[in-house]
Amino acid sequence: MTYLERLIVRVEEVGNCLCVGLDPEPGSLPAGFSPDAAGIERFGGLIIDAAIDRAAAIKANVAFFEAFGSAGIGTLERLRARVPPSVPFIADAKRGDIGSTAERQAVALFDALGADAVTANPYLGRDALAPFLERAERFVYVLCRTSNPGASEIQNLDVGGEPMYVHIARRTREWAGDEANAGLVVGATAPDELARIRQASPDLPYLVPGIGAQGGDVQAVLASGPATGGAAAGRRGGGLLVNVSRGIAGAAAGSEDPAAALSEAVAHWADVLRC
Amino acid sequence: MTYLERLIVRVEEVGNCLCVGLDPEPGSLPAGFSPDAAGIERFGGLIIDAAIDRAAAIKANVAFFEAFGSAGIGTLERLRARVPPSVPFIADAKRGDIGSTAERQAVALFDALGADAVTANPYLGRDALAPFLERAERFVYVLCRTSNPGASEIQNLDVGGEPMYVHIARRTREWAGDEANAGLVVGATAPDELARIRQASPDLPYLVPGIGAQGGDVQAVLASGPATGGAAAGRRGGGLLVNVSRGIAGAAAGSEDPAAALSEAVAHWADVLRC
Repeated sequence: MTYLERLIVRVEEVGNCLCVGLDPEPGSLPAGFSPDAAGIERFGGLIIDAAIDRAAAIKANVAFFEAFGSAGIGTLERLRARVPPSVPFIADAKRGDIGSTAERQAVALFDALGADAVTANPYLGRDALAPFLERAERFVYVLCRTSNPGASEIQNLDVGGEPMYVHIARRTREWAGDEANAGLVVGATAPDELARIRQASPDLPYLVPGIGAQGGDVQAVLASGPATGGAAAGRRGGGLLVNVSRGIAGAAAGSEDPAAALSEAVAHWADVLRC
Repeated sequence: MTYLERLIVRVEEVGNCLCVGLDPEPGSLPAGFSPDAAGIERFGGLIIDAAIDRAAAIKANVAFFEAFGSAGIGTLERLRARVPPSVPFIADAKRGDIGSTAERQAVALFDALGADAVTANPYLGRDALAPFLERAERFVYVLCRTSNPGASEIQNLDVGGEPMYVHIARRTREWAGDEANAGLVVGATAPDELARIRQASPDLPYLVPGIGAQGGDVQAVLASGPATGGAAAGRRGGGLLVNVSRGIAGAAAGSEDPAAALSEAVAHWADVLRC
């Protein structure tokens, strides 16, 4: 089964398009958790337990583990092993590089870590993503319109009469070709852009960050997020994944029972993101 | 001292602008080296020993270590500890992300790994690089025109009458501001673009990959590579670093004495890249 087929099965099962983010910030852990690799491992384990119960997918932001060096990567590897095969696991690493380096990036994320999908940056062009795209059963979410305040600085530049982000959306369709194993990262903080990107790429699955702490627009995402063409069209959720990280992790901060607080927060967001 | 000041001191000392790349490919190690984390650690150690003697700087391509998971990062950490403070150490990781993530990327590369400089991708805009740029004594090489065959696909797009790579060169100057702690990655495989980028950014220091295995043009790089304005102008090398990775590592492949072969290869490239 391809990543997209597995994702669709999971979304049918849980009835929502919630992707739970694993971005443990050592300064924001609940009381009793040490601000180190051991602390984020314990806290990350609670987030995974809560997500496995009912989220569509889990996305680990690898920088939050890399910040603790080799110990942090060890933590990430053990956390990843706790996620069962039925739950798609995305490594949010925003890679992409010249061919020989991208080969090793693909080995790092798909083989060493065992991710089902990755995020990647389009600035170096198609050949910098080829080693990822060649894994037909895996998946690549290409950065299109990101959720940060300054995203428009480069991504909204006019290229040949259209914004860069529309150009990247069309390129990504071409890059994936018949394998159709690429999608886009489109932030919820730019709803107009999201609608325009959906017009330009009806069949691409989207991974949408920016909901919760970043203040993105849930209704706009649920309206324009699902694919209207391709393999995901007409399937529950239309291939859409909406990521919530701090909106869930933050619920545990002041709680006496972090596990219960995380579980409630996941249930809340699963309900908001019903599909 | 800033990174650039330290780099200039080192270049004065060694008289060349050679940056030795640490990109150990497990399939290309000399006989007797195991194709695993232990093998690349042993081989990487020989490359570092050869580089410390006479290269201007060392650049580790982190993907080649990440491919071995936490064990590979442990290897990279131990190799980094073997590089003395007098030799600038660059982490080639091509990062950049929304603010909270970029903060952790900066911690990972500058603090956990102890890199003096990093490479970063401009697609997310200035705020995605801010946590790197805020470290005034460190340095950020922003991807401008990369050395891969498909680099022109996005980087040569016309934006407002100029190619994207020129736009990124000008933006990078603005992004760094008074700290002047940013430079550019410009591939040696595109000599015309290199000359044009130098015109648009006379004062930015360049990190130039693509010499050796990738077939870049050494004379064009030595002509347009050095800064003609800013703090590096008029100093030996003009802030230029030219990276050679496979061109050095490959010399050891068929050799009975890999250490001697690496040392000779470093001496050869140091001579080619005299400044």
